[in-house]
Amino acid sequence: MSEKLSTQPYKGTRDFYPAEMRLRNWFFGVIRRELENAAFEEYNGPMLESLDLYAAKSGEELAGKQTYNFVDRGGRSVAIRPEMTPTVARMVAAKIGEMTFPLKWFSFPNMYRYEATQRGRLREFWQLNVDIFGCDGYEADLECILAAIRILRAFGADEQMFTVRINNRRFFNDVIAAVTGEGADAKAISKVIDRRAKVPREVYERDLTALGLTPEKIAKIDSIYNMTVREATALCPDSVGAGELLALFEQLEQLGVDSYCKFDFGIVRGLDYYTGTVFEVFDNAPENNRAMFGGGRYDNLVGLFVKNAKVSGVGFGMGDVTLENFLTSHNLIPASFGGGKKVLVARFDDVPYEVYLKLTERLRDAGICASLYLGQKKFGKQLEYAVKTDCTHLLVLGGDEYARGVVKIKDLAAREEREVPLKDIEKAFD
Amino acid sequence: MSEKLSTQPYKGTRDFYPAEMRLRNWFFGVIRRELENAAFEEYNGPMLESLDLYAAKSGEELAGKQTYNFVDRGGRSVAIRPEMTPTVARMVAAKIGEMTFPLKWFSFPNMYRYEATQRGRLREFWQLNVDIFGCDGYEADLECILAAIRILRAFGADEQMFTVRINNRRFFNDVIAAVTGEGADAKAISKVIDRRAKVPREVYERDLTALGLTPEKIAKIDSIYNMTVREATALCPDSVGAGELLALFEQLEQLGVDSYCKFDFGIVRGLDYYTGTVFEVFDNAPENNRAMFGGGRYDNLVGLFVKNAKVSGVGFGMGDVTLENFLTSHNLIPASFGGGKKVLVARFDDVPYEVYLKLTERLRDAGICASLYLGQKKFGKQLEYAVKTDCTHLLVLGGDEYARGVVKIKDLAAREEREVPLKDIEKAFD
Repeated sequence: MSEKLSTQPYKGTRDFYPAEMRLRNWFFGVIRRELENAAFEEYNGPMLESLDLYAAKSGEELAGKQTYNFVDRGGRSVAIRPEMTPTVARMVAAKIGEMTFPLKWFSFPNMYRYEATQRGRLREFWQLNVDIFGCDGYEADLECILAAIRILRAFGADEQMFTVRINNRRFFNDVIAAVTGEGADAKAISKVIDRRAKVPREVYERDLTALGLTPEKIAKIDSIYNMTVREATALCPDSVGAGELLALFEQLEQLGVDSYCKFDFGIVRGLDYYTGTVFEVFDNAPENNRAMFGGGRYDNLVGLFVKNAKVSGVGFGMGDVTLENFLTSHNLIPASFGGGKKVLVARFDDVPYEVYLKLTERLRDAGICASLYLGQKKFGKQLEYAVKTDCTHLLVLGGDEYARGVVKIKDLAAREEREVPLKDIEKAFD
Repeated sequence: MSEKLSTQPYKGTRDFYPAEMRLRNWFFGVIRRELENAAFEEYNGPMLESLDLYAAKSGEELAGKQTYNFVDRGGRSVAIRPEMTPTVARMVAAKIGEMTFPLKWFSFPNMYRYEATQRGRLREFWQLNVDIFGCDGYEADLECILAAIRILRAFGADEQMFTVRINNRRFFNDVIAAVTGEGADAKAISKVIDRRAKVPREVYERDLTALGLTPEKIAKIDSIYNMTVREATALCPDSVGAGELLALFEQLEQLGVDSYCKFDFGIVRGLDYYTGTVFEVFDNAPENNRAMFGGGRYDNLVGLFVKNAKVSGVGFGMGDVTLENFLTSHNLIPASFGGGKKVLVARFDDVPYEVYLKLTERLRDAGICASLYLGQKKFGKQLEYAVKTDCTHLLVLGGDEYARGVVKIKDLAAREEREVPLKDIEKAFD
């Protein structure tokens, strides 16, 4: 072949070289530790799902033009998962009789969305999904919000860096009904409010006017955006959603994490399936200044699969790209990860190769990260290799050392050298 | 919606519920620890790749009818990766100038193949890929084979359970040329030999005859299948491949791992791109009795991307399904994983909810896996929940205990109960 293949990854996807992979393994590790410590359990599902799984529940944009879908050789319409919630709802439905509710589950699936690539948005991404199934009360909403806060705090983030903005769809619908009268289309109005920050004020007003709202009603809604949770809930004191919001904020205060949280009537979440508490976690860095991730309560998804099933759900999804941007912006990524010992055994021609092999295997058996230089280069090249691959130590065992039964250990950071007996090499790294 | 969605995962894929996920995280953890200990570094790449990446290098079957591929909305022909080698070759090629060779890399990608599902073969699977780039000698082949052996031994497997069958494509071609004469089509013959175990003897003989082999030549090849590496290499002592095989087996003997290994002239590997050492790891369990995984040397893949590039590669891929079958057949899966403490805090109506929340958060802050019962059920239901979700301890803090400033700790395994002061609860789990 004379025509060479491109080395570029597919548009909107990333290659994870070891440096990037170490970073990702580190932050997935922090998250996993924090969630397992709070008794969440990890699960995963397939990358491909039946396309109708998404048509049935997602907002139109996600099921339609944002989803990678195709017809397989058996004539099935399949999609590469654009989100995890339909999969997890399907999984819960499939074993509903064997489950011990409430379930507290999390996953780190990779997924695809066909969208214009921009900062924080790629076509392939990994998304942490945290969900609680089978608890109807605000307690599960609180547990999800606490998990989000605990995760970000585990990275060293504080209340200056992020804010959890919280609303309630049930409360939202009751307020919209109270402000606009019973006939109003709360769903259509919620979509206009959801887009509010992304469109000029004139567009926002025009869209609400088109839905029958007078300037007075628009002004009334405006006034709610700046209200505290207690002011806002006083507008509809009998709303079940208002009660949920108040209970939630009371416990956030009791736990002393209310400084991370803010009531925000403008948070409604784009997807159609949310039914109660909704929240978005904002990155407060000026260069990001956007919702990093969000979630909420979606009571009836399992019912799409099982007749008469009543399993409520609440959860959130957090993309790896936005999390990495957040950690970078706030300088929360450590200079190095792990930091254990890493030993390179240098190789010389005047010592039998099996001597080096056995030495390397002995170190590995002792749990010491060790590698034998592969190839036959001069010592200078081997030293260079050790430095460039972040080895902490280089072992030198030439013909002279071998004859004397010793090994030279070069500490590459301290630039020190010492000799130890070959037979005691493992102990030298205690 | 009255028509309910199916709860089945897409054909040939699996749902990983927490129990299955724990198993997978456990065996990926064992493998990762073993490879990192041998100074291999983890990487990953995208799930979608340009289709021509596979057409250029794979055997026909994999690039053609086994690959999930489609045209995206931008008119690009893309494939869901059916294997990782083209991706890793592309990644090495893309940064060839910045790399410190030899590279020792591994990855655990999920991938898809469109094939008839059967024991050990699914459409979605995870595959450990281990590769070394930039070392031309047999030393890198040996390092890969050692990694495979170390991984299986880390699971407790011994030489009764598996065998690494080793051959060399260069040696194979030289022997075929010596047996059949220079004009023979070694590639076509290798494909017949590769299928040998899967077809009746008549078919094997018919196919070799069709390629111009006389009964005498077929008998000559038959005689090689049972030869030791020293007998076989004596057939072509000047072959470079013979020298590689002898050096490899000598060091396997020196390291005392030759009991895990066997020369096997019938191992040629289906894919076209192998150029030197090839090997397959066989599961010796009678009910499996098949190649679990394999690999080999593929010297010129990076050259598909970069003009005049000379980066040799050697590696292997191991699927999660076959590994799990192997571990199950040989009874190598422990009864439980982890085995740390897991605490459930029970909830009663006569104590303020924030007391339970604060208690749970204190335990989590102390690194103790803790959960507060979500919901408002009777104590018996909460106890049942604790048992079913594998909690080790249940904390009881009713109105009476709260008034006395104590917590009852129920050890669910030992069926013992003790009281500790609420203020010292973290210390109770030291």
